[in-house]
Amino acid sequence: MASEARIPPYVIAPDPGADGLTRAVEGTDHTGARVEIAVVEERPLTIYLNSQEIVTAMTIGDYPHYLAVGFLENQGMLRPEDEITGIDFDEELETVVVRTASQTTYEEKVKKKTRTSGCAVGTVFGDMMEGLEGLTLPEAEVRTSWLYALARQINTTPSLYLEAGAIHGTVLCAEDRPLVYMEDVGRHNAVDKIAGWMRLEGETARDKILYTTGRLTSEMVIKCALMGIPVLASRSGFTAWGVEIARQVGLTCIGRMRGQRFVCLSGEERLVRDVDPASVPEESRRSGRKGAA
Amino acid sequence: MASEARIPPYVIAPDPGADGLTRAVEGTDHTGARVEIAVVEERPLTIYLNSQEIVTAMTIGDYPHYLAVGFLENQGMLRPEDEITGIDFDEELETVVVRTASQTTYEEKVKKKTRTSGCAVGTVFGDMMEGLEGLTLPEAEVRTSWLYALARQINTTPSLYLEAGAIHGTVLCAEDRPLVYMEDVGRHNAVDKIAGWMRLEGETARDKILYTTGRLTSEMVIKCALMGIPVLASRSGFTAWGVEIARQVGLTCIGRMRGQRFVCLSGEERLVRDVDPASVPEESRRSGRKGAA
Repeated sequence: MASEARIPPYVIAPDPGADGLTRAVEGTDHTGARVEIAVVEERPLTIYLNSQEIVTAMTIGDYPHYLAVGFLENQGMLRPEDEITGIDFDEELETVVVRTASQTTYEEKVKKKTRTSGCAVGTVFGDMMEGLEGLTLPEAEVRTSWLYALARQINTTPSLYLEAGAIHGTVLCAEDRPLVYMEDVGRHNAVDKIAGWMRLEGETARDKILYTTGRLTSEMVIKCALMGIPVLASRSGFTAWGVEIARQVGLTCIGRMRGQRFVCLSGEERLVRDVDPASVPEESRRSGRKGAA
Repeated sequence: MASEARIPPYVIAPDPGADGLTRAVEGTDHTGARVEIAVVEERPLTIYLNSQEIVTAMTIGDYPHYLAVGFLENQGMLRPEDEITGIDFDEELETVVVRTASQTTYEEKVKKKTRTSGCAVGTVFGDMMEGLEGLTLPEAEVRTSWLYALARQINTTPSLYLEAGAIHGTVLCAEDRPLVYMEDVGRHNAVDKIAGWMRLEGETARDKILYTTGRLTSEMVIKCALMGIPVLASRSGFTAWGVEIARQVGLTCIGRMRGQRFVCLSGEERLVRDVDPASVPEESRRSGRKGAA
């Protein structure tokens, strides 16, 4: 696991220094001293599917193409068979338009609306649930040594979170290698950017692990399952319905990953315990993301 | 500040032991041992305004009356002048119907939709912003001794968070006294329950402080301002737009409250620094809520 010693070679890693993702804001601290802190940006992005306005997302603004495609796909508005003919992002208008060769089934979708426990306003929950019917996630193994290696690498990777806080992260991983690390003010945006990247890059899901700083709520579990990823891991906790759905679809759900500790509440059969937890160092207080609140 | 020594006399405090808020779920821990952990419930609640279905919220399920009224009010669908004639909660159907004497202006509202960085699916963002025009928040003082006292009391109050994690909390406070402490899987649900309680109990806003475990995003700031509460405090961080809006409406915004530390990025003029931060104990690692992720 030599990769743990350094920052791994991500396909996409956070770019905390990038223009427009954070802003320096002046204030005072507890001593009354003037301070200037880096604060994450939060801007609207209106997503269109062809001529239909679908939703306005609040986002840090990076990877609008991936966010739009991933959101539409995770909402079931963009089907695997829908051919994407273009994606037009207009920074000034704060819009992104995803164009498909033929009409999609989104009309019926936009009528429905569900408020979730997560951060995905406008989620078409009913349709997401329908999408789970008959879904079986691939067999796969997940070694505990991978989970520990992933957590250590992700927690120490320079990120907007470590720079400015108040942001969620989701990382697409293969075995012990983090591949694509997305962050956003809404944790579901980060997941959607991953989904968009996978769709546009034609990446396979069956051999992947999805790591999130967010809670394992029903919606996070559903999104992971719809993406076809068999393993979902988080340093945060669970909701009862999230666990229930994970068990229904056979998703391996691992939460509360802190140092050597974790809890697996679903899909235990994929776990290969190939390392003695006692050999894993506990986290220092500073180390690692606590996840945005 | 004798109240710090014990759990304060809340008007409404969390009831972690209440039936139906958590569920014992079996799994395995990092050592492979069987464990049973308490996990928060997450269930749908469909909110109606008269005969119009508005949204389905994912909630832990307590205080559906407050959640429904607060959500509708924070969305601008329920105006101060709208007379509430009845609130019918049907546990089996998982619905709550808020009835008003006369028709409301919600029809136009339900056409719009914004996905926010927070957890409020179905937020009518445009209308929330409109609601801020011409809004001036009352003058008020907030003593740093109150902020420290509130944080200590809230962080040590028995809660679903301390019991099961994966949940957000929002507390309505007066000076150094926490009054109403709401928790929910979606942090905006917790805020909406506070708003609903204030509306139905006729509580004043101008002398209150709103404390949240969640981030100070644009939507959290807007909700607090619309509720007429002049001070918003959080142990979590900020977003740039949240700060911008807070400054526009003159909301005092205090974040990153940890032990003796905090940062004030807006409304500094209300702060009365009546205690030496050095006299405030740092948090132990265990103490206090980290906020759900």
